[in-house]
Amino acid sequence: MTDIDAYRRLESRFGRLGRIGNALGILNWDQHTIMPDGGAEARAETVAALEVLSHDILTDARAADDLDAADADTDRLDAWQQANLREMRRSWRHATALTPDLVEANAKAIARCEMAWRSAREESNFAALLPSQSEVLRLQREIAERKSERLGVAPFDALLDEYEPGARAERIDALFDDLAAFLPGFTEAVLEQQAARHPVERPEGPFPVADQRAVAERLMAAVGFDFSRGRLDVSLHPFCGGATDDVRITTRYDESDFVKALMGVLHETGHAMYEQGLPAAWHYQPVGEARGLALHESQSLIIEMQACRSREFLAFAAPILREVFKGDGAAWDLDNLHRLYTQVERGFIRVDADEVTYPAHVILRYRLERAMLGGDLALSDLPGAWNEGMQALVGVTPPNDRLGCLQDIHWPGGAWAYFPTYTLGAMAAAQLFDAACRDGGDVESGLARGDFQPLMGWLRSHVHSQGSLHDTDALLTRATGAPLSTDVFKAHLKRRYLDA
Amino acid sequence: MTDIDAYRRLESRFGRLGRIGNALGILNWDQHTIMPDGGAEARAETVAALEVLSHDILTDARAADDLDAADADTDRLDAWQQANLREMRRSWRHATALTPDLVEANAKAIARCEMAWRSAREESNFAALLPSQSEVLRLQREIAERKSERLGVAPFDALLDEYEPGARAERIDALFDDLAAFLPGFTEAVLEQQAARHPVERPEGPFPVADQRAVAERLMAAVGFDFSRGRLDVSLHPFCGGATDDVRITTRYDESDFVKALMGVLHETGHAMYEQGLPAAWHYQPVGEARGLALHESQSLIIEMQACRSREFLAFAAPILREVFKGDGAAWDLDNLHRLYTQVERGFIRVDADEVTYPAHVILRYRLERAMLGGDLALSDLPGAWNEGMQALVGVTPPNDRLGCLQDIHWPGGAWAYFPTYTLGAMAAAQLFDAACRDGGDVESGLARGDFQPLMGWLRSHVHSQGSLHDTDALLTRATGAPLSTDVFKAHLKRRYLDA
Repeated sequence: MTDIDAYRRLESRFGRLGRIGNALGILNWDQHTIMPDGGAEARAETVAALEVLSHDILTDARAADDLDAADADTDRLDAWQQANLREMRRSWRHATALTPDLVEANAKAIARCEMAWRSAREESNFAALLPSQSEVLRLQREIAERKSERLGVAPFDALLDEYEPGARAERIDALFDDLAAFLPGFTEAVLEQQAARHPVERPEGPFPVADQRAVAERLMAAVGFDFSRGRLDVSLHPFCGGATDDVRITTRYDESDFVKALMGVLHETGHAMYEQGLPAAWHYQPVGEARGLALHESQSLIIEMQACRSREFLAFAAPILREVFKGDGAAWDLDNLHRLYTQVERGFIRVDADEVTYPAHVILRYRLERAMLGGDLALSDLPGAWNEGMQALVGVTPPNDRLGCLQDIHWPGGAWAYFPTYTLGAMAAAQLFDAACRDGGDVESGLARGDFQPLMGWLRSHVHSQGSLHDTDALLTRATGAPLSTDVFKAHLKRRYLDA
Repeated sequence: MTDIDAYRRLESRFGRLGRIGNALGILNWDQHTIMPDGGAEARAETVAALEVLSHDILTDARAADDLDAADADTDRLDAWQQANLREMRRSWRHATALTPDLVEANAKAIARCEMAWRSAREESNFAALLPSQSEVLRLQREIAERKSERLGVAPFDALLDEYEPGARAERIDALFDDLAAFLPGFTEAVLEQQAARHPVERPEGPFPVADQRAVAERLMAAVGFDFSRGRLDVSLHPFCGGATDDVRITTRYDESDFVKALMGVLHETGHAMYEQGLPAAWHYQPVGEARGLALHESQSLIIEMQACRSREFLAFAAPILREVFKGDGAAWDLDNLHRLYTQVERGFIRVDADEVTYPAHVILRYRLERAMLGGDLALSDLPGAWNEGMQALVGVTPPNDRLGCLQDIHWPGGAWAYFPTYTLGAMAAAQLFDAACRDGGDVESGLARGDFQPLMGWLRSHVHSQGSLHDTDALLTRATGAPLSTDVFKAHLKRRYLDA
């Protein structure tokens, strides 16, 4: 039994899971784009049934036997198969760490808390969220404990592992402390420099949705998005989803501002390029999936932040924008557009934050969730701690909890230890883009022509095609010569925002 | 073990199957409306995986044990539960009649044959279809044999049972022989009467898609379609699909002719009303599903043929059509529109046929598939037999096989014994509409006001809410006082097409 057959049976088992995952991907996309409201309850039932089926397939006793047999004799497996087996085991550990009762209690607590959150945020009423959020937090602690035992890592790291495999809080603490020491002074310097210049002009709309969509599709195609294997649609909150060879991104249009939808589309296109570039030979298998949320975010930020807010790319895009939106006047000059696309502001809301202040929002949330999970901060003290942290890290104090600790769905939604991946992704993006420029030669001049091929070719071979073969640090080291660090990210911020 | 617990376990098992069915319903809708072409292969893999899962759940040994236990003691089950158990058993018999090898061989043969059919039809080349169609026919015979043994009915009836539970060819033969004796002479008489009048005028387009869609949605709403639990979209071939509380119909627009899309939408709306009106308490269970294809088709034809081609309804619709399409002149008069909507023509193509000649197309196919499955007609002799039958039943001889025996996908697609349900449905529609008019009083005057409530209320209580509680004849007898017969259908045709 300690043989290649056990591994083959696992491939077949996980192949089934991958296909159910595809079905769930399309159902999820459908739910957030076009499903009629009345279908919500039946859809929830359908999704829950598929999730239970997946869980049953993954936790079946024969899966455990096959994992043991395959693990006992990995000599005949090649590197990809061994990595696949490692990811199968990881996935199995997460699934078997929790009892069905705990999974169900957690799902119900999240559903209740998300519902409470919607009205609590609307009314800026943290007290109204407290009871259901306490229950979610209690269950997250229990989940962290159970997974900690099963994975053999600290409780917080066990939660982290679901989003960013192998990540450790100790390492993130060091990276974020370094950034937190850098950001407030740097932000101050950038704001001073910006204030000394004449004000940025905002192009005046309206910008018809059809025109915005046409530009978005043109730029998606330039990046390399394959429309024969994907779509662009509309949803309340933009996302990248879908299935194998059917990668669907969404955006939301605002006729008074084209920048937001457009940069949102380019961000999701970055995610989509990763999905479209995963190794076809490993479709449906764990090793064929994207490595983790940090690398996923790095791919969206390479396109949105590194490439598409660069002066080179904007030199290519500005004439297109002027043409499609019939723009005229100083607001449409390259200089002004570049300043518009790289404007820094201290704000209350994470999702509206610029490249410079965004990490501060993330570091705040990461530190708070660490403290709450660890019992060092009572949930009832969150609003005060939030506001103090915002003042220290971003430099503003939210006037109410709607603009403060009630703004994100992550904690009500049970996504604890998720936030750090955004900023780990920003760091990885800077590092990968820098390496691509050094390696490829033609990356930046390509962008100036609207040619993403040099950049995308490099990402295809160094990131996308690697699937989950290596862990994040190993992939970064092979691709850039160094594991994740803050250096290149800080250098990028200084070059773009101070030296310009 | 011979207890209510076995039945409860079966409800839970079939509840899972119902939810997987919902997932497949949305995936199928997606595939035929918006899926990018490149996603086809992965989608096929995903659908196949869910179908295998369903098959495994249905054929699991514990399902057989529970069925035996529940069947041995049905005293404590109420009428709905007993009917549910009966449908579970039927579904289980169909699933367990075939070996996985036969199911797979059949799926592959169908996929090959459908591919061959597309080009064979295009080139009007029957010889090119013959090899793959022979294989599909051979497998259908084998499937019929296996199901015949399992269900204890004749082989052809075993195939019929999948589409129209409990139907028997002997009964259909009698009904169709009666119709076949009636139709040629009747058609001749109708055509003579039509020829004696001045020609029908066709309203001139173009009719913009947006306007057609607006009218379609307005009339769907009038019929009673609940847009909070359904959608209208576009696909190459119109269909009604989707999931529980999420019933999606499609159409195809032609800017030179609004009648086709509009009547197509009303047809699919009839199917959708059935789905939206199924008993909510039995969602996901077999007894909560529509009874069979004959009754399903009856619901589409009640709306399209009985209600929406009636003079009463057209009196309501004509002003709306004139207003939306800015119609003017004699072509838009009620009289002319009514004649346009009830025009009879001898044609080659089933899907383009009118209410009078359609049954002749169906009877031809039914007789031919009976003969081929029974070995009385060699597949290679089909084109000749087809053309002779067309001449005898419809009164025209197709000039080639593209307009003849190659026009439909049913036989290449492995849907043998499916055709008769179209005309059984037309007969049931006439019978049900007639009974609703007699019972309700206000049905026809309601249509003249665009008020479908009297008709729909009657259908809701007599058909939709009944799910699969009764078999088709029992339902018809309860609703109309008589089992399925040709009488009311013939009377309807005479009244509409000769006495008018």
